[in-house]
Amino acid sequence: MAMETSIWHKIHEDAEKWIREAGALLKKAIAGPLDVQTKASPDDLVTNMDKEIERFFIERIRAAYPGHRIVSEEGYGDEVNADEGVIWLLDPIDGTMNFVHQKRHFAVSVGVYENGVGRVGLIYDVMADDLYHVVRGDGAYYNETRLELLDEGRLDTAVLSINGTWLNRNRRIDPEIVRTIARRARGTRSYGSAAIELAYVAAGRLDAYLTMRLAPWDYGAGLILIEEVGGVISHVDGRELNLLKGGSLLVGKKGVHREISQVIRQAIADGLYVEGQ
Amino acid sequence: MAMETSIWHKIHEDAEKWIREAGALLKKAIAGPLDVQTKASPDDLVTNMDKEIERFFIERIRAAYPGHRIVSEEGYGDEVNADEGVIWLLDPIDGTMNFVHQKRHFAVSVGVYENGVGRVGLIYDVMADDLYHVVRGDGAYYNETRLELLDEGRLDTAVLSINGTWLNRNRRIDPEIVRTIARRARGTRSYGSAAIELAYVAAGRLDAYLTMRLAPWDYGAGLILIEEVGGVISHVDGRELNLLKGGSLLVGKKGVHREISQVIRQAIADGLYVEGQ
Repeated sequence: MAMETSIWHKIHEDAEKWIREAGALLKKAIAGPLDVQTKASPDDLVTNMDKEIERFFIERIRAAYPGHRIVSEEGYGDEVNADEGVIWLLDPIDGTMNFVHQKRHFAVSVGVYENGVGRVGLIYDVMADDLYHVVRGDGAYYNETRLELLDEGRLDTAVLSINGTWLNRNRRIDPEIVRTIARRARGTRSYGSAAIELAYVAAGRLDAYLTMRLAPWDYGAGLILIEEVGGVISHVDGRELNLLKGGSLLVGKKGVHREISQVIRQAIADGLYVEGQ
Repeated sequence: MAMETSIWHKIHEDAEKWIREAGALLKKAIAGPLDVQTKASPDDLVTNMDKEIERFFIERIRAAYPGHRIVSEEGYGDEVNADEGVIWLLDPIDGTMNFVHQKRHFAVSVGVYENGVGRVGLIYDVMADDLYHVVRGDGAYYNETRLELLDEGRLDTAVLSINGTWLNRNRRIDPEIVRTIARRARGTRSYGSAAIELAYVAAGRLDAYLTMRLAPWDYGAGLILIEEVGGVISHVDGRELNLLKGGSLLVGKKGVHREISQVIRQAIADGLYVEGQ
């Protein structure tokens, strides 16, 4: 039996408090005299901040919600093999490369699921101070503004988010498929943070987002936002996503998602390579 | 003979005032009830706002600086065939598609040149309220923060801005060249506003930016910012840029620029296609 509605609002409230505290810690790390981070061994320091923020969340979640399990990028969470009970999908810093190189365009992402159903999602674009958040059934929000339901959309007037990796030679998809999709669209963008790109899809700023490799913590919050505004979610060929397995991801407005997934299914039928087929 | 220094500070002051007023007009246009813009015929309305902002600037420039000439995107400026005297390169909205689709990630760009030498440059990322600005010789700034000189950089740890168009089949460059460059870099991004991408290079957030097609108003301000922090500017193969002609553009940290332009020159020597060769 599902828990009462109020628990999700309580979780939303707590998660928002923690995510803003985490944002303050990240801002401090960036602004401080430890600017050495970008010069010497940037990846190390990011790992340190990733770990620090992840531990920050895990301590608070365990104290407030001892029965909940946590799946997180740096691995301080729990071993979770099934989507039973309440699970927090946590990415302390989504967009690591942006964090190091740009000191912006990174996000903290927190998604809470109950028996596989998304309940509460928050994506915090730290440097922009933009919070995208949702309690399932109560609407998705960009800060204080309620996000509208996505319209149908169509590929030839769509702006897509696709990382250049997938237009290039790679191990996961024949790039000719992705190039065909990109040519049919009005334009493409790439921001380097899956969480921000998913939030943009929810906010209607991107018509679809396609990627060949994401983990549960990357999309945990974003999928709940997108579901709430009527966007469509699947693997790139339209197959249903397994929440805890990850893999390829295609999200977008209904019409745009349909056109893109059709191109991919046709390419697979024509013998082109797509991972997972 | 060059004019006195103080005139450039006066121009900077005026341009900043006007650019912020223009930003307020654009914000109003976006926030207003005329949201129909995104639905019916988005390109028309953008054209209207482009024209409105361009006229706004031209009126003010002509009143304050009657001897100056103006080169601008919508064509209300002057016929200018040589870079003699003082020229304003003006883009009222850089990132038109973002303006329509995202209501963010667009910029107003103003660059002032004297006898072909960049003197004053301002790029205003309207929705972020971020101003990148420079008076030649007095340092480049991101809002109140002085930008540091760019370090040498190297391609294998670089984040590049490259629109997916150039990784795809196109008329201006053999995409295999650009794909090779992208694979050697740490990552690629694409934001859909050349002015913002140039400002990011100046601010050290991107290590280089490569594009096959830009006009003087797109890069007028950005080049002055990048010159001020020691970045390198040329066509993609390293040839010198003609300010008023436009074409392909490669800007970046010295070492990254050198590695990329070498790849392109080698590809040309190998018989691959690059426009302008």
